[in-house]
Amino acid sequence: MNRIIRILTLAMAVLILGPLGAQERDDAQMLRKIYDKALTDGMAYDWLDHLSNEIGGRLSGSLEAEKAVRYTKAVMEEIGLDSVWLQPVMVPKWTRGVPEYSYIETAPGISSVVNVCALGGSVATPDGGLKAEVIEVKGIEELSQLGREAIEGKIVFYNRPMQANLIHTFEAYGGCVDQRYSGAKEAGKYGAVGVVVRSMNLRQDDLPHTGAMSYDDLPINQRIPACAISTNDANYLSTALKLKPDLLFYFNQTCRVFPDVQSYNVIGEIRGSEFPNNYMVVGGHLDSWDLGDGSHDDGAGCVQSIEVLRLLKKLDYKPRHSLRVVMFMNEENGLRGGRKYAEEAQIKKENHVFALESDSGGFTPRGFSIDADDANMAQIQSWVPLFKPYLIHYFEPGGSGADIGPLKKEGMVLAGLRPDSQRYFDHHHAANDTFDAVNKRELELGAATMTSLIYLMDRYGTTSEYTSIPK
Amino acid sequence: MNRIIRILTLAMAVLILGPLGAQERDDAQMLRKIYDKALTDGMAYDWLDHLSNEIGGRLSGSLEAEKAVRYTKAVMEEIGLDSVWLQPVMVPKWTRGVPEYSYIETAPGISSVVNVCALGGSVATPDGGLKAEVIEVKGIEELSQLGREAIEGKIVFYNRPMQANLIHTFEAYGGCVDQRYSGAKEAGKYGAVGVVVRSMNLRQDDLPHTGAMSYDDLPINQRIPACAISTNDANYLSTALKLKPDLLFYFNQTCRVFPDVQSYNVIGEIRGSEFPNNYMVVGGHLDSWDLGDGSHDDGAGCVQSIEVLRLLKKLDYKPRHSLRVVMFMNEENGLRGGRKYAEEAQIKKENHVFALESDSGGFTPRGFSIDADDANMAQIQSWVPLFKPYLIHYFEPGGSGADIGPLKKEGMVLAGLRPDSQRYFDHHHAANDTFDAVNKRELELGAATMTSLIYLMDRYGTTSEYTSIPK
Repeated sequence: MNRIIRILTLAMAVLILGPLGAQERDDAQMLRKIYDKALTDGMAYDWLDHLSNEIGGRLSGSLEAEKAVRYTKAVMEEIGLDSVWLQPVMVPKWTRGVPEYSYIETAPGISSVVNVCALGGSVATPDGGLKAEVIEVKGIEELSQLGREAIEGKIVFYNRPMQANLIHTFEAYGGCVDQRYSGAKEAGKYGAVGVVVRSMNLRQDDLPHTGAMSYDDLPINQRIPACAISTNDANYLSTALKLKPDLLFYFNQTCRVFPDVQSYNVIGEIRGSEFPNNYMVVGGHLDSWDLGDGSHDDGAGCVQSIEVLRLLKKLDYKPRHSLRVVMFMNEENGLRGGRKYAEEAQIKKENHVFALESDSGGFTPRGFSIDADDANMAQIQSWVPLFKPYLIHYFEPGGSGADIGPLKKEGMVLAGLRPDSQRYFDHHHAANDTFDAVNKRELELGAATMTSLIYLMDRYGTTSEYTSIPK
Repeated sequence: MNRIIRILTLAMAVLILGPLGAQERDDAQMLRKIYDKALTDGMAYDWLDHLSNEIGGRLSGSLEAEKAVRYTKAVMEEIGLDSVWLQPVMVPKWTRGVPEYSYIETAPGISSVVNVCALGGSVATPDGGLKAEVIEVKGIEELSQLGREAIEGKIVFYNRPMQANLIHTFEAYGGCVDQRYSGAKEAGKYGAVGVVVRSMNLRQDDLPHTGAMSYDDLPINQRIPACAISTNDANYLSTALKLKPDLLFYFNQTCRVFPDVQSYNVIGEIRGSEFPNNYMVVGGHLDSWDLGDGSHDDGAGCVQSIEVLRLLKKLDYKPRHSLRVVMFMNEENGLRGGRKYAEEAQIKKENHVFALESDSGGFTPRGFSIDADDANMAQIQSWVPLFKPYLIHYFEPGGSGADIGPLKKEGMVLAGLRPDSQRYFDHHHAANDTFDAVNKRELELGAATMTSLIYLMDRYGTTSEYTSIPK
């Protein structure tokens, strides 16, 4: 409570005494140095070039994922962190197999090829592929209205598009992704033989977007293959169905689940000078989908996170808390890395006070969504003027990041970098999530913005820390 | 003054009575409708597709520029404005000629081809091209220090890069563009035979960026040819010069100035219901450079401006003021359209109270820079909360747009849309200013943001209007 009063008093003082006191001037100067360094002497873009163009898509359990583990470990060692290590974690291994093939057959011998890809975790189609009639729905809830009679033996086509008038595109994603994640499980219960899901993409184009799906505990014999179809082809299929409701849809995919394999989170640390057992974490996830090279999702977040610690070191900043950068493994299809990291932190009684994730693309940063109590939120809000010169304006309550979620506990602050989200779903989980779609300056501005928040959190601490730790 | 007091009272009332009064609720609902319509039923992207892909680069005096005049006039007629007309204006005609060719010769017979393009307005090189030694400078001010002896007979290489640590990239542009605009004129005075200017581009790539240059009133015989060189090749040339200061630089360009030709501003209008002789203008410039298709500069601004009036019509909004959309001709190399429009407005005693230009690319909008007196600025600032749901946060004093600048007068409000500027100079005046670099949603958000400001300005008027016009 004392801390809150101090913050309020400080805020009053700023209002009364003028825009910037001595402390604020220090902070303003530090932020200026951070942005200058990031924009004129940054490393994130070069690292991402390697991760994307030399290694490529990094699906959990793949050779590329293991190369990425070795590469980011080497980068962390090269920038001279106090310690760098691998944290073992078992991850699922799913492989796509040969390229998928699909067509719409409107009459015997008359067919049009369409663009599909298997959803991550899906079973394969039967040998030679699957061909069946199609029933189009706008959502899972329609299944129970239609009933088994209408669905049995058919392919269910989930075609609810992302809502274009939502400004936050992640909200539009959230409003649709149940079709992809649970669509097959639910349709299987009604005797469907397969599902095809409209890609989670706000743009009209020819690229199918993959992503995780789950059968949960559905019996093996009810697990039906699931694929995503491009937005253009989803529209085409929908139109074709209106003209010819008994058309046939064919798709063939040879994806496969293997036993879990050994993988790793990659962790680097700068030991705290005052509160070494109070940890602040910054990270992204090292695994990606396999269609593109995972530049935005989440190569960008990974290299930005390493850059945070490099920038602080280059600026000779000695953190009071122990700062960790974590490359989480297996966010996309399991979250094993995030869970493992939180488990070990609890076992080792490492007091995590702040965690920041960048997993929304490498676009121009707008601010942060913040998961914190009122006192911490008020403290962060008091820093808004410091960010204004960098056009960072968004500091709102909200979710942080999937990988750091398991760390959540009372009094802790979690935050997610919020870049401009308009282009994100053009690339998300698709073949065009590639290095050329990342702008160097935008990536660097993100890294600088993250570094600035880490700096301020380290300097001032979370409000809960100071009830237990004397200053 | 009454108006200011009313605004302040209103602001106080909002603070005291709660977040939104009835009027603010109306406005909030109207903005919601504007954004919804723009994002779900927009036309700007389709129009830009035509302008960029069916017509292409639209240099003043070109056939493409005339096609663009006819096309945008037809679009305005189709959306049913009260009146649409062409405003004749004579424009300069400069043509690039055959593709430029350039190389660096480090020894007889040993040369490397580099990427250059003629600057707009430059004279040609002598027949067969120009080859000379090079002197590198970081700016015009170095010329006088070097003196005629060091410069005469040489090609001056202006190589001051854009400053990467400036967040507003237009500031970085402003800090360099004198090299391009006046470099040849100034170097000619010292007997230089040509100039090559580092492209105004924050990215390292192979694309030369053209743009306007001027000889002012320099005698014809002192006018030397000027080209831009890509950033990669500028770095290469600079390095080569360190190794071999007497290397030779060759370039050949066949550009040419023709007599002025007839062209047009395209104007559409919705007549005001209450103040028909008080005009509010929204516009962009229809001409573009010739290397790309001018999608960002300024096809985007043109289609967004037409979309403003279309959206208001579709939403059945009856403006109080006369609203005009103007496609200005010849911003890039003469500003004849902007000047002509202002001249005629003065002659016809049309009282222009507000003008808004979009000429900073079709990227995600962040807000506006505003050229207004304190009272109008305060009124606009009072609308900031209305824009927050759309992540529009930037409302700062600053320049508006080149084309609307000549309209400026006491009490008038001028504004420029400010989109995210990080990627703008990657494309500006270069071959990659093309349709594929424009994101549909970002373009539409810009149009909605402009429409919202026009709506609010129309509804509340400028503060100066109300001293002379009784309500």
